[in-house]
Amino acid sequence: MRIALLGGTGDIGKGLALRWGHDTDHDIILGSRDPEKARAAADEYQETLADHGVETKITGFVNEMAADRADVAVLAVPAYHLTDTVEAVADKLDDTVLVTPAVGMKRDDDGFHYNPPPAGSVSALAADAAPEGVPVVGAFHNLAAAGLTDLDTEFDWDTPVFGDDDSAKATVMELAAEIEGLRPLDVGGLANASEVEALTPLLINLASENEGLHDLGVKFW
Amino acid sequence: MRIALLGGTGDIGKGLALRWGHDTDHDIILGSRDPEKARAAADEYQETLADHGVETKITGFVNEMAADRADVAVLAVPAYHLTDTVEAVADKLDDTVLVTPAVGMKRDDDGFHYNPPPAGSVSALAADAAPEGVPVVGAFHNLAAAGLTDLDTEFDWDTPVFGDDDSAKATVMELAAEIEGLRPLDVGGLANASEVEALTPLLINLASENEGLHDLGVKFW
Ligand SMILES: NC(=O)c1ccc[n+]([C@@H]2O[C@H](COP(=O)([O-])OP(=O)(O)OC[C@H]3O[C@@H](n4cnc5c(N)ncnc54)[C@H](OP(=O)(O)O)[C@@H]3O)[C@@H](O)[C@H]2O)c1
Ligand SMILES: NC(=O)c1ccc[n+]([C@@H]2O[C@H](COP(=O)([O-])OP(=O)(O)OC[C@H]3O[C@@H](n4cnc5c(N)ncnc54)[C@H](OP(=O)(O)O)[C@@H]3O)[C@@H](O)[C@H]2O)c1
Repeated sequence: MRIALLGGTGDIGKGLALRWGHDTDHDIILGSRDPEKARAAADEYQETLADHGVETKITGFVNEMAADRADVAVLAVPAYHLTDTVEAVADKLDDTVLVTPAVGMKRDDDGFHYNPPPAGSVSALAADAAPEGVPVVGAFHNLAAAGLTDLDTEFDWDTPVFGDDDSAKATVMELAAEIEGLRPLDVGGLANASEVEALTPLLINLASENEGLHDLGVKFW
Repeated sequence: MRIALLGGTGDIGKGLALRWGHDTDHDIILGSRDPEKARAAADEYQETLADHGVETKITGFVNEMAADRADVAVLAVPAYHLTDTVEAVADKLDDTVLVTPAVGMKRDDDGFHYNPPPAGSVSALAADAAPEGVPVVGAFHNLAAAGLTDLDTEFDWDTPVFGDDDSAKATVMELAAEIEGLRPLDVGGLANASEVEALTPLLINLASENEGLHDLGVKFW
């Protein structure tokens, strides 16, 4: 499978790229608005993986080219720029599954708060921006990038996955399950997005209020 | 400590009454709109506890009288009736800590959805209804009543606890920690309520979409 991480130069993109690079044989393709930046990040992640005994080729391209080469494209960009990013790559998305891990939050003195757009959820924004027929799947919202990025960190986390296209959702759940220590859980369709997105500020608030809990994940049982 | 469960004739009230009755020496006081119903439930829970080898006295009263006797009063009533219930007992609440486990949800074909009132959260409703100076603490939203009620069920669950009065929050966290298998986690003030309340429909959706996951709880790590 060819997995593109659009905005893969950032935190969650790096974490997912390293974990899929480490735990699977999938082709990892980094996207950026700036192809030079993508190539530099690709080299850096490749070196990190080599330091962990994994020889693999990661490539870097401008987001459009990365999406064009991918079966699955993760929108690893801030929620505010999700629509722009989908629109930038829209022409390249035949048969591509779009994945959104994006959460809209605002912060004040009390902590972080879920801040959904008028569409109801950030995932609904992505679905509205996606060309007709391109499936959008939500996943990975509740993973701490720092935990993924440090390959010496072991975890035992769940990630809720949702989407209206069952086959696209199944593809993303399989990719998630291939990351060691990660269990994807089906949580239905896009209509259930906001409760999943709201989990992220809860995790951040819990981490900030409780000593010894940082880079927090979640397990359902 | 004297703990009143207002609406303790219902599911979550029964679960908390049985667990505190089983795991602690606190006085358990059941409240109901109907004192006869409260007394019948008290007898029933006492018998269940006796069957599990615990001899303890549970008492039952109309909600107002239950609140009057309590140090801590749990609002174990549906979200829609929270304000009414607080108003009914308002005169009896000197030095009482009010606890809300209530979540507002709506259901459609896709699943359960968080449905906060205009106040922003159900907890904010309770705080608005409470007399000046009576602290409101949120806790227990994410516990499955069925898991609590069956005393043979063992669990290892977290419950996020929030509130603006640190001393009241600490009291409720101690009471929560005394239930075996339950870990309270501080999640700041009332302003952080909605992300906690939204966890409940997420848990219900996860349970309904994934075989083998029912009466689901959550652990943060
Ligand atoms: N960080 C986490 O722990 C975490 C965990 C789960 C989910 N998430 C979600 O994942 C998404 C990305 O988070 P992150 O922490 O990785 O963000 P980030 O590091 O701040 O940004 C990711 C990338 O987005 C691109 N970007 C920035 N501004 C942009 C713009 N105006 N238009 C298009 N692309 C832009 C940048 O790539 P280029 O400059 O290379 O184009 C940047 O490297 C967010 O929606 C977040 O809610 C984050
Ligand atoms: N069930 C769960 O697993 C669970 C878990 C966590 C949180 N919660 C929350 O806890 C609260 C109670 O849930 P539940 O499942 O226990 O509810 P429930 O069993 O449906 O009702 C609890 C009690 O509320 C009282 N009540 C009903 N209508 C009322 C009204 N109009 N005014 C005042 N009291 C009324 C009834 O007591 P009387 O008839 O004796 O007065 C009833 O036994 C809800 O807000 C829910 O979101 C539930």
